[in-house]
Amino acid sequence: MSEQTFHVRDPNYAERTRAIFARQGFLRYIGARIKEVEPGRCVIAADFRDELAQQNGFFHGGLIGALADSAGACATGTLIEATQSLLTVEYKINLLAPAKAPKLKAVGEVIRAGRTLTVSQVNLLAIDGAGNAQLCALATVTMMTLISRGEGK
Amino acid sequence: MSEQTFHVRDPNYAERTRAIFARQGFLRYIGARIKEVEPGRCVIAADFRDELAQQNGFFHGGLIGALADSAGACATGTLIEATQSLLTVEYKINLLAPAKAPKLKAVGEVIRAGRTLTVSQVNLLAIDGAGNAQLCALATVTMMTLISRGEGK
Amino acid sequence: MSEQTFHVRDPNYAERTRAIFARQGFLRYIGARIKEVEPGRCVIAADFRDELAQQNGFFHGGLIGALADSAGACATGTLIEATQSLLTVEYKINLLAPAKAPKLKAVGEVIRAGRTLTVSQVNLLAIDGAGNAQLCALATVTMMTLISRGEGK
Amino acid sequence: MSEQTFHVRDPNYAERTRAIFARQGFLRYIGARIKEVEPGRCVIAADFRDELAQQNGFFHGGLIGALADSAGACATGTLIEATQSLLTVEYKINLLAPAKAPKLKAVGEVIRAGRTLTVSQVNLLAIDGAGNAQLCALATVTMMTLISRGEGK
Repeated sequence: MSEQTFHVRDPNYAERTRAIFARQGFLRYIGARIKEVEPGRCVIAADFRDELAQQNGFFHGGLIGALADSAGACATGTLIEATQSLLTVEYKINLLAPAKAPKLKAVGEVIRAGRTLTVSQVNLLAIDGAGNAQLCALATVTMMTLISRGEGK
Repeated sequence: MSEQTFHVRDPNYAERTRAIFARQGFLRYIGARIKEVEPGRCVIAADFRDELAQQNGFFHGGLIGALADSAGACATGTLIEATQSLLTVEYKINLLAPAKAPKLKAVGEVIRAGRTLTVSQVNLLAIDGAGNAQLCALATVTMMTLISRGEGK
Repeated sequence: MSEQTFHVRDPNYAERTRAIFARQGFLRYIGARIKEVEPGRCVIAADFRDELAQQNGFFHGGLIGALADSAGACATGTLIEATQSLLTVEYKINLLAPAKAPKLKAVGEVIRAGRTLTVSQVNLLAIDGAGNAQLCALATVTMMTLISRGEGK
Repeated sequence: MSEQTFHVRDPNYAERTRAIFARQGFLRYIGARIKEVEPGRCVIAADFRDELAQQNGFFHGGLIGALADSAGACATGTLIEATQSLLTVEYKINLLAPAKAPKLKAVGEVIRAGRTLTVSQVNLLAIDGAGNAQLCALATVTMMTLISRGEGK
C-alpha cells in the first residue's frame, strides 16, 4: 500500500519530528522512542515494564493505542511544512492478540496525505526476545494539519 | 441512553472492579482512579501533570484514549460474573477539543451488554478548576467476555 | 448530550437539507426519507423490504451504516452556511442487535460542530409494528465542511 | 500483510460464500458481485449508476461502506466451517478521495482470524475506464463467528 511517493515539504522533517516527539511529556514518561523516521513513515518502540501493563502482565491496551496514535502522528508530521502543526482527529484500534513481549513496536504509515486531513495506518508488533514480530493490533489514525502560523511554532 | 436496567451477576461487582483496576500497573502509573462505579457505569479520573501531556501542555491524545478504554472496560466489568474476565476488542475515539484542564474524567456507560460482546460509550470531560466540565472526546469501546474459568481467576 | 445550543448560519437550513437529500440517487433508491430536521439533528427512516435485507431477512448491516452516514451528514448540514458543502471523513458503526423490524430509523445528533470538522452520533432504531423502538446500532460520523464556493452551488 | 496462511475448514468455501452472497437482497439490489474469492480474501465490485450516487455523481459514502462491510464478511466467511454463520460486530471506514469512477472494487483481506472474532481490512478502489485503480477508502471490519448450529443451515 505504501509504495506511493510522498511530497516532503520540509527537508528538515526528521529532526523536526524527533524534536516534537521529545517535547511530549507523556511519550517520555512511557519510554517511547522513535526508531525510524522517513517520509510518510515512522516507527516507535517501547520496552515492557510493569508500569505499562494491565493485570495479566501484557502491554495495556490503552498504552498500545497511545503508541498507535503517536506513530500515526509522527508519520503524518514528516509530510507537513515546518510552520504547520497537527491535531489528532480520531483513531481506532483493533486489539488482535495479547501483547506479551519484551518490546512493542508501532509502525505508522501514511495511507493518504491531504491538505487538511491525513490518514495513517499503524501495525502494532509484539517483538519477542529473538526479535520475532507478531501483529498484535491494527490502528487507523486521522490527523488534521493546522494552517501555517507565520514563522513556525 | 443509559436508562436501561442492567442485570448484575456478581453482587460484589464494585470491589471486584476496583481490585482489577488496582492490579493494572499502567493505570497506577498514569494516576488513574475510579471515582464512581455502579452497574453498567464507571467514572475514571486523572489529574494533569507534565507526564501526561503532549507538546502544548494539553492531555496527550493517547492518554485520553487509554482512559476511555479503561472506563469502557470497567463499566463492562460491573456486569460480568466473578469468574469471567474481559478483553478489549477495539476502541475508537474522536478528539473534539483540546483537553487543557487540571483534571480529565472518563464517563463510561454500557450501551449494550451481550453474552460475548459488550459495547460502551465513553464521554471524556475536561474539568476546570471550578469543576466545570467540557466534553473533549467521545469514544466507543467493545469488550469481549471470556468464558468462566472454573472457580474464578 | 445534545442539550447544547447550535448556531444556525442558514435560516433556510431545513429546505436546503431536504433538497440535497433529494438529489442523492442512492438515498432515493433505498427509500430513505427525512422524518425530522432541526438544528444539529436529523432523523431518517427506511421501510423494510427484501431489497434492503441480508440473508436472514434483517436489514443489511451495510444499509444500516449507509443510513447512519446519511443521518450524520444531514444533522451536520443543518449547521453549515448555504454556500458550504460537506464530505464524509469517516464513520464507524457498532451493530448491537439484529435489525428485524418493519422500519429502521437513524437519529443523528451533532456532538461537536467545528469550523472544519463536525462529529455526530447516530442511534439506529428498529421500529416494530406497534411503534416500539429498539436500539440496534450506534455510529459516529465525522464530516468536513468545505470552504464556501462563492455564490454557493 | 496477507502473506499468512489461513486454515480452511470447509473445502467448499467458495461456493458457500457465493451462495450466501446471492441470498442477500441488498447486495443484489446494488448490483454487487463477487469477483474473487480465496482463503481469507474476497473482492467485490459494483458498477456506477445514478442509483448508487450522492449529489455530485460520485459513489455514495454509505454505499462504499456497505461494500466494505460485505467484502470483510465474505473474506471472513471463507475461513469458517460450513455449519457456522457470521455477524458483523462493527466496521469503520475512512473515505480518502471522491469515488468518481465507472466501477468500485472492495478488496477484503483477513488480518486475523480468531475462533470468535475475525478482523479484516478492506481497500476500496475506484476503477477508471482504463482499469486503473485509485484507493478511495480504507475500512476495518470485525466479524463474529456464531457457534455451529448442528447440521448447519
